[in-house]
Amino acid sequence: MSKKKFAVGVDLGGTTIKVGLVDEKGKIIKKVSYDSNSSKGPEAVTKQIKRGIEEVVKGNREKILGIGIGAPGAVKLKKGTVENPPNFYGWGKVHLGSILKKEFDCDVFVENDANAAAIGELIYGAGKYYKNFIMITLGTGVGGGIIIDKKIYRGDTGLAGELGHITIDSAGAKCKCGSIGCIEAYIGKDYLIERTKIKLQERNDSILFELTNGDLNLLTPKLIQSAAEQGDEFSNSVVVDTGTKLGYALASAVHVLDISTIIIGGGIAGFGKLLFDAVESSIKERVMKSFRDRITVKPAKLKNEAGIKGASALVFYKS
Amino acid sequence: MSKKKFAVGVDLGGTTIKVGLVDEKGKIIKKVSYDSNSSKGPEAVTKQIKRGIEEVVKGNREKILGIGIGAPGAVKLKKGTVENPPNFYGWGKVHLGSILKKEFDCDVFVENDANAAAIGELIYGAGKYYKNFIMITLGTGVGGGIIIDKKIYRGDTGLAGELGHITIDSAGAKCKCGSIGCIEAYIGKDYLIERTKIKLQERNDSILFELTNGDLNLLTPKLIQSAAEQGDEFSNSVVVDTGTKLGYALASAVHVLDISTIIIGGGIAGFGKLLFDAVESSIKERVMKSFRDRITVKPAKLKNEAGIKGASALVFYKS
Repeated sequence: MSKKKFAVGVDLGGTTIKVGLVDEKGKIIKKVSYDSNSSKGPEAVTKQIKRGIEEVVKGNREKILGIGIGAPGAVKLKKGTVENPPNFYGWGKVHLGSILKKEFDCDVFVENDANAAAIGELIYGAGKYYKNFIMITLGTGVGGGIIIDKKIYRGDTGLAGELGHITIDSAGAKCKCGSIGCIEAYIGKDYLIERTKIKLQERNDSILFELTNGDLNLLTPKLIQSAAEQGDEFSNSVVVDTGTKLGYALASAVHVLDISTIIIGGGIAGFGKLLFDAVESSIKERVMKSFRDRITVKPAKLKNEAGIKGASALVFYKS
Repeated sequence: MSKKKFAVGVDLGGTTIKVGLVDEKGKIIKKVSYDSNSSKGPEAVTKQIKRGIEEVVKGNREKILGIGIGAPGAVKLKKGTVENPPNFYGWGKVHLGSILKKEFDCDVFVENDANAAAIGELIYGAGKYYKNFIMITLGTGVGGGIIIDKKIYRGDTGLAGELGHITIDSAGAKCKCGSIGCIEAYIGKDYLIERTKIKLQERNDSILFELTNGDLNLLTPKLIQSAAEQGDEFSNSVVVDTGTKLGYALASAVHVLDISTIIIGGGIAGFGKLLFDAVESSIKERVMKSFRDRITVKPAKLKNEAGIKGASALVFYKS
């Protein structure tokens, strides 16, 4: 007796496509990853996605409940259309949902990757027991997803939760989006590394010089984390500053939304307790009294496989 | 044949209580206003509210559909409890809703005043034809209300829409709320006047000196508006700066909410077209491309009687 019970999660990234077969508890049964071929145009990318799905469903095809895809860029839910994802060459507009539905004859759910991450935490992760929460993902970009009444909040056009573009200093750092002082322009991975390199020019006591063998072009958030853990005062201050600034942006979001549970994921969340404590005390310092005691900052649970799991959660999620 | 068709709207302010009898189109049939007696404790205030309601319903009592109250401070909807409204002495927590329901034997709806203003615009005003909008009220404080799917969005505890405490400069001006760089700390009435006075020290060419007879303690937003209309360059720059800064805060709100219709009310909105144009171009300059073309900034319609009308709209509003 076979029962449909698995979901396929597709994490579409600019460099790699990760595909997993996931059960309803969020356990990955099987996974593969391929080059995205993002420089070769949408057909090449779609081919890689199909190849990944074929591979993970092999032998279990009749047990597949549906396919979920987390994609960068703007997503139109109905047709599962993905528009202008950054770093994908010659893409324009692709009805990825319809194409895959036809190919695999099952339900296909396409969602913006930050929203998929929030839904993943809602279904399997740190947001399971909350009705409302703000999810923020710290990586190259700073992404966000807002859960209200256990549903993703989309706004007018599905772009709600662009938390990386909350201003923390309207006369501050330039952001690639064209605006000024967005939180992403301070703590997005590349910006963070650049700012840290500049600060290091005046801090020759930091062990980051050793950890990079004197070549600061090798600096990564992981090395900063590692140095902070080894007691490097400078790296410690970088982590605390990252958390404090993020707290300023989140305080604005809390004032707008009156949502007091914040879940933080993504690579830079690996900065760990030091970061989380800094975020929490910064938000509490900046929100009005009536919000203060309710603020809860939690690490995301899905970690490394957040992309696949978040995408697969779309299948188990009733929107 | 008598038909229930009127609502009573109560605008509870720190100085004055305004009460009106309003029809379903938002027309005020009769209105009175009394001293709030806010320094005399909650019983004295409640007595004034009852007196106002008695007065406006006289002769129409059987036609009253319900009573709506817009109150400052935190409001608990179920019992219509008003907690710690600023500028009310010895208040604590008062079940205003239950008290008035007992007294007048009809439905009573109590709502935070900024939310009531948003509901007023939704039912009678500039928000009538929009599903989602952000309402912002510019007065002594900068208040906000968020309408999603034609309903007020409340968040975890009914405090959503504290738009005055969105940060525009995390290292900027101190705000009375305890935070730093809140938009209210720049454009809230008293802050705006103080900042303008300081700037005037270096601008003896402004006609504001004439309009205040040389006594800058007489400076008001109305005088700034009047001077700007008379071509005073300095006052013009104050209005534009107010709108530009407000735009920075609203750009953050747009990124969080993906709501692109903004309705602006309150005394300082009287700055008029010059202000509205500055707000709109500032938001557009600061939001990501995918939001830009949809941004619409509109003046509130309810103007002077917004308090009474907004409160009465609570009766006609299905939450």
